[in-house]
Amino acid sequence: MDWHVRTLEATDYDRGFLELLGQLTVVGDVDRETFEKQHMDMEKEGNRRVVVVVDPQRDQVVATGTALIEKKFIRGCGCVAHVEDVVVDHRERGKQLGKRVIEDLLQYAQKKGCYKVILDCAETNATFYEKCGFRRKEVQMVHYF
Amino acid sequence: MDWHVRTLEATDYDRGFLELLGQLTVVGDVDRETFEKQHMDMEKEGNRRVVVVVDPQRDQVVATGTALIEKKFIRGCGCVAHVEDVVVDHRERGKQLGKRVIEDLLQYAQKKGCYKVILDCAETNATFYEKCGFRRKEVQMVHYF
Repeated sequence: MDWHVRTLEATDYDRGFLELLGQLTVVGDVDRETFEKQHMDMEKEGNRRVVVVVDPQRDQVVATGTALIEKKFIRGCGCVAHVEDVVVDHRERGKQLGKRVIEDLLQYAQKKGCYKVILDCAETNATFYEKCGFRRKEVQMVHYF
Repeated sequence: MDWHVRTLEATDYDRGFLELLGQLTVVGDVDRETFEKQHMDMEKEGNRRVVVVVDPQRDQVVATGTALIEKKFIRGCGCVAHVEDVVVDHRERGKQLGKRVIEDLLQYAQKKGCYKVILDCAETNATFYEKCGFRRKEVQMVHYF
């Protein structure tokens, strides 16, 4: 299959991008206008890559992930990439699409000069990320409002 | 002690801000010009708060922490705060300065409309964050270049 791997576009609203994120967590009602504004605001910030894998036959987004670049003072004013919101359509599992998303984001982070890439995942997904060259480090803590 | 809690200023270069971060990890040689440029670039992004606690008697930064706001598509195009680079001067430990930093950043995140605040910490610091209202969630994975 000749998957297309590219940056998120505003028109991906019609290619099931939000429905795909809905397989990961709650998305809620996001209308086209809200989506386009958020997409534009993210573009303006210019500090992230939202990658999508598109199935050209169905013209649907089947995998996605985000790398957010954080400027630091530490490490000689270096930067770190945070990988967020990685999901592969449950109908397309086992086709290495998750690996393609991560490889794409690692490449982006390296090109941006990051000294490391971090992410938080469920214990059950740790093995997948180990295969992608990550290792376990710290404990994620969360505070909900 | 009447500590001053405020946003990082460019002049904190002279108040031991980088030396304080050096108690957390490697900072390296960051000259004034590089520091000021990074500080300005962060201000322009407008998506974070770097809070500092200043000892007014010594005119030195004795604690700091950062909250980085990440725009999301999930949760109705919500946002999440990442808490980073929290450190208290080892000479000032036991004075609740860490708690003041975290409380300040939680307040900022709530004001910005974040639905949650996340951070990664060493196992030995988890109890401190639990006292600040956090709970353990996932596993942090890291990839170094």
